[in-house]
Amino acid sequence: MRKRGYDAEREVVAMLREAGFMAVRIPVSAPSNEPLPDVFAVKGDWIIAVEVKSHENYAYFKKKQVEKLHQFLEIHRLYPRRMALLAAKFKRGGWSLLVAEKIRDYSVKRGEGLSLEDFLRTYEK
Amino acid sequence: MRKRGYDAEREVVAMLREAGFMAVRIPVSAPSNEPLPDVFAVKGDWIIAVEVKSHENYAYFKKKQVEKLHQFLEIHRLYPRRMALLAAKFKRGGWSLLVAEKIRDYSVKRGEGLSLEDFLRTYEK
Repeated sequence: MRKRGYDAEREVVAMLREAGFMAVRIPVSAPSNEPLPDVFAVKGDWIIAVEVKSHENYAYFKKKQVEKLHQFLEIHRLYPRRMALLAAKFKRGGWSLLVAEKIRDYSVKRGEGLSLEDFLRTYEK
Repeated sequence: MRKRGYDAEREVVAMLREAGFMAVRIPVSAPSNEPLPDVFAVKGDWIIAVEVKSHENYAYFKKKQVEKLHQFLEIHRLYPRRMALLAAKFKRGGWSLLVAEKIRDYSVKRGEGLSLEDFLRTYEK
């Protein structure tokens, strides 16, 4: 489980770097109260805070985790473009991304959400 | 040793918050190659990346650690004011701070370096 999460985070970093971002994984040990994402990425005046999950068919992101992303982005409010991104990797293949504009629970099923390509096409200016 | 480092990091966070920064500890588990500081802090257009050590009388900061701070700041180059800060806490009391402008080894003895007050007075605009 831990290994799978680790691999998924590294994959997110690789995908974002491929898309021209500077991306860093934050390998925090124990569950922490610090407002840190699993991954953050920067490109020009854009910063993205990412929470990553790896699941069978269905991923659930708790409000608390979404709140941490928003807190992290609030610290970096110097960036004109800030985005909280939820990234779910499914065991049988595929990724689903959600932009978490509000601080609430989110869930995504396999086949729903955006691919990274969709995400970049939609949000990249 | 680990506990002492942890306490010192939390103390740095508390001091920086006291001075009006938003400060976050990054509690990374194993030694990691990610370009992450122990603590980062933001105030307006100023970002500080801090490496924290706790020692008896003498603290040594390796080039590799200083380089990570600079890499972290390079990602956040949107901030007009970026600073790599080395913070040594001494067992018998007192802190010594150094600004690491160059990527090289640094060391500081107890009684040398800047206090946090000196540091803020010198660098805060």
